[in-house]
Amino acid sequence: MPIALLTDFGLSDAYVGTLKGVLANLAPQIPVIDIAHGIPPYDIGHAALLLYQAYRYFPKKTVFVTVVDPGVGSTRKPILVETEDYYFIGPDNGLFSLVLSEQKIHSIIHLTREKYFLHPISSTFHGRDIFSPIAAQVAQGISLEKLGEPISSMFQLPGLLPAVAKGKITGRILSIDRFGNAITNISRTILEKEFP
Amino acid sequence: MPIALLTDFGLSDAYVGTLKGVLANLAPQIPVIDIAHGIPPYDIGHAALLLYQAYRYFPKKTVFVTVVDPGVGSTRKPILVETEDYYFIGPDNGLFSLVLSEQKIHSIIHLTREKYFLHPISSTFHGRDIFSPIAAQVAQGISLEKLGEPISSMFQLPGLLPAVAKGKITGRILSIDRFGNAITNISRTILEKEFP
Amino acid sequence: MPIALLTDFGLSDAYVGTLKGVLANLAPQIPVIDIAHGIPPYDIGHAALLLYQAYRYFPKKTVFVTVVDPGVGSTRKPILVETEDYYFIGPDNGLFSLVLSEQKIHSIIHLTREKYFLHPISSTFHGRDIFSPIAAQVAQGISLEKLGEPISSMFQLPGLLPAVAKGKITGRILSIDRFGNAITNISRTILEKEFP
Repeated sequence: MPIALLTDFGLSDAYVGTLKGVLANLAPQIPVIDIAHGIPPYDIGHAALLLYQAYRYFPKKTVFVTVVDPGVGSTRKPILVETEDYYFIGPDNGLFSLVLSEQKIHSIIHLTREKYFLHPISSTFHGRDIFSPIAAQVAQGISLEKLGEPISSMFQLPGLLPAVAKGKITGRILSIDRFGNAITNISRTILEKEFP
Repeated sequence: MPIALLTDFGLSDAYVGTLKGVLANLAPQIPVIDIAHGIPPYDIGHAALLLYQAYRYFPKKTVFVTVVDPGVGSTRKPILVETEDYYFIGPDNGLFSLVLSEQKIHSIIHLTREKYFLHPISSTFHGRDIFSPIAAQVAQGISLEKLGEPISSMFQLPGLLPAVAKGKITGRILSIDRFGNAITNISRTILEKEFP
Repeated sequence: MPIALLTDFGLSDAYVGTLKGVLANLAPQIPVIDIAHGIPPYDIGHAALLLYQAYRYFPKKTVFVTVVDPGVGSTRKPILVETEDYYFIGPDNGLFSLVLSEQKIHSIIHLTREKYFLHPISSTFHGRDIFSPIAAQVAQGISLEKLGEPISSMFQLPGLLPAVAKGKITGRILSIDRFGNAITNISRTILEKEFP
């Protein structure tokens, strides 16, 4: 199953290429697919939206590596979330908030087993040293419990999900796309549920 | 044979990634190659030029998916053009005008068989719901007649081809590239034919 | 082993797509990996830095095709450098200066055997007509001596490497990345060597 990449690294630096080098080295048989790398730097909400828009079209068991990581080097945890259909890897900063409003969680792993990281572990580039090497392992079928400790909660980014009261949905615009479309957080699913 | 993608989707939204998810899901063994995604939004002439510049370098039987689609949701037809060497899939809005000045057409199919589309079919994202699923089928060898009705003509974008009179070629600049080169529609082939 | 691409071609023209078409045609089984294509036009120093940052994470025997080529069509040589671990292909204009401060050189080949080029050879697009076809051959295991004449020296871009005197390293900022980090040419290796 493929590894899919979503980052704010842009395409003018070597960061995306470095992730791909790591993956080619550690998991040469695994296809790597770019979702997008032009997310505005550190914009976690934007990344959460793009992941939400794209993930369901990927094959089951795709390993998503999402690196928008303003807190890299701080105490925020590196995590892996296994859901009913997919694997999500990245920092515990709310990136998966929208996806996990739809996907049933099977387990959350705090990635602590440094034997699976690249060394020396940089304090500024966990995409290269932690998330990509872990993705290479997951895509090749490692038992997830080898990768760290199960945890029971994650950081939830506030304001991503709409507020639903009786007869009223209050949402907001999460992004304006390249074509000028304003993308709200009020999905068709929510609309049809509240106003059938 | 590979699928090659050319769109105006940019790399800051999830649209290109979504196409790739669909293809990974429906045609996991088929290589997917990006031509370019930075075409100015809705600029059909620019896309026609880029496709023309690149296509001949691809392997025979490559399936080109070209999505620059200002008329999505209107009555413009989704089409597949089979030529002597390649397959071209996209909206019938002139995207293939330059390529088809060189490639002999074998058949044009109006894509109407919704059983091969993704459902529900969005009115704004036929790249995801129509063109990519069809490309996955074509790259895996489906009989083209299963995909729709043969038609005999296409929309031709005016002004793309130069006017040739005796001893005189009148062309125009189609694009100015990243390096400042002005790219005209007067090809070496035309020049050598008119002024041998 | 993969082919890795690093260019200043951007993603709004067909140039990157054309390279990939050539490679898909001549070496269909070889994975092709993008390092970056957003290097500022003609900025050789920036490309040298990005190649330096990324190359060590790729699998041994990766074939790097680096095309930032302000002198295309002039007398600068097209070259292939075989090092202890990798192959580097591109114009002889200093692109490999930083990498080769770390990698032991096995041979340098001036690429002169036109039978391995695409014809007609453009005077403005050697990435397509020379470097990509040669990369396709190298990735598939051709004997390097078939590709041209061994040479003993290369152009070295001045100012890339820091000046090291006793107790003092004088470097400069090579790039400011997307996140605002200033990247100097004083590597950890040099620092630890001079100030252990």
